[in-house]
Amino acid sequence: MLPKGNFPEKVYLNGEILSSENAKISVFDRGFLFGDGIYEVMVQLENGIFYKKAHLDRLQENLVKIGIGYDLNELESQIEPLLVASGLENKSCLIYMQVTRGVAPRKHSYPKGILATVMMYALPFQLPYINQKNMYAILEPDFRWHRCDIKSISLLGNIMTNEAAMQSGTDEAALVRDGIITEGSHTNIFFVKDGTVITHPSNEHILDGITRKIVVQLCKDLHIPLIEKGVSVQEIPMMDEAFFTGTSTQIASIAQLGDHTYHAPDDFGEITQKLQNGLAKLKEIDTAMVTL
Amino acid sequence: MLPKGNFPEKVYLNGEILSSENAKISVFDRGFLFGDGIYEVMVQLENGIFYKKAHLDRLQENLVKIGIGYDLNELESQIEPLLVASGLENKSCLIYMQVTRGVAPRKHSYPKGILATVMMYALPFQLPYINQKNMYAILEPDFRWHRCDIKSISLLGNIMTNEAAMQSGTDEAALVRDGIITEGSHTNIFFVKDGTVITHPSNEHILDGITRKIVVQLCKDLHIPLIEKGVSVQEIPMMDEAFFTGTSTQIASIAQLGDHTYHAPDDFGEITQKLQNGLAKLKEIDTAMVTL
Repeated sequence: MLPKGNFPEKVYLNGEILSSENAKISVFDRGFLFGDGIYEVMVQLENGIFYKKAHLDRLQENLVKIGIGYDLNELESQIEPLLVASGLENKSCLIYMQVTRGVAPRKHSYPKGILATVMMYALPFQLPYINQKNMYAILEPDFRWHRCDIKSISLLGNIMTNEAAMQSGTDEAALVRDGIITEGSHTNIFFVKDGTVITHPSNEHILDGITRKIVVQLCKDLHIPLIEKGVSVQEIPMMDEAFFTGTSTQIASIAQLGDHTYHAPDDFGEITQKLQNGLAKLKEIDTAMVTL
Repeated sequence: MLPKGNFPEKVYLNGEILSSENAKISVFDRGFLFGDGIYEVMVQLENGIFYKKAHLDRLQENLVKIGIGYDLNELESQIEPLLVASGLENKSCLIYMQVTRGVAPRKHSYPKGILATVMMYALPFQLPYINQKNMYAILEPDFRWHRCDIKSISLLGNIMTNEAAMQSGTDEAALVRDGIITEGSHTNIFFVKDGTVITHPSNEHILDGITRKIVVQLCKDLHIPLIEKGVSVQEIPMMDEAFFTGTSTQIASIAQLGDHTYHAPDDFGEITQKLQNGLAKLKEIDTAMVTL
């Protein structure tokens, strides 16, 4: 029995579409024993999956990074049957995918000759045209590993810092490593200073989000200067605007970060708004035409 | 169907003892989605579980560290029934325990009001009186998180470095953070220099192993000086001996670490041997009498 909660109707699991109730894996799955897997989250709009290729390409890159051999074409071909079974064909929804190394007796090194465990589900989810939320965020030490570029399910560091944000009554935690703000617990972070957008370089200390990439592209298209460099905690008050990005977050204005208030809760920064409008317009284009 | 392999006969899972084949959890278990859980490994000797209290105390501490509310007495009371069902009562075996936060719709922060998922199994396993293996180990960057004191199942960093050791044809990877050797991919590491034992301090960069603690105690009992400090990569050739420790590893002599050879593959360091003998003798005492 599943506890009460907003679970999906159906789950794709290893070639079958099951009720969520019946979607079960072995306790010997390395996803359960070692956090040995990767995941991806995409959003389907009414006109198709937003940046589907970018998400699937990243999933493929992550499989390679941790040495899981799995043919992603199989999973891709199962998206549509899952959406149909879930009653979400052509409907706004969130699509979650996870691939783990598979089932084997517990041993740290990679077992040979086993099949990857592949799981996917879709949940009704409506992206607002523009995210109107103005976020409050705390600063938390970034004690995660040094391969945050891997979209791994070994997420305990992320959930502990996210929980700290929830416990403090705020919306997100901005993570600080060696004095530099890297990203949020499940978002990327951007700042604006004198009309220039600033974000942490895409390296092993952040997850190079698809929405992060879209914003980088939008800055080019909108002739907004962008530099990739870390912003220190000391520089927070010197910045003019700040925002988080993520697949379901889109672009979320930050009203307050740590002790510093950027603006009133009903106000939005100028550049933040420009980028929010730019992202919103991308969603109106045929999704097949929008690529990174 | 489980793939072929050395799986246990039985698995304790959430109050039931099941065949390994039937031991399944929801794909919405936070252990599977987030690596949101902790684990413990103990060894039962013919005269009882070795340092049972120390292992269970650590499990309890880890539950507190990540905020999982679960009464460990329940799990402890299930050890004996599991061993009986597994045909391992009073037999040498390895006991694996894992507790995850439980099943909930996917959301980073901790859900309220759900039950922890509790899993345990036992496998026939015979500890040698003394580990006669002489290990070869590579040096690998320690890119894990900064809460290695938590015995978490978010282990992707550990398994990637362990796999690197296996790929190189060696037995273990010694991990290097900021030039300092912290521990192995699934062991602690000790050095010996001029009769003094040296090991990394117990902080957030290592898991404070039970066997590590036993060795610290043994050094006191055997009047061997011990200091807790990090050994740098540059200092490796200046050391006289090195060994790994772990619950199933016990004390394993290191013949070669990186480019440096400590001794021939059939040789053992003097202090290493003293400690190996000391550990072996502890196993002959009534396990109820041996505590930390």
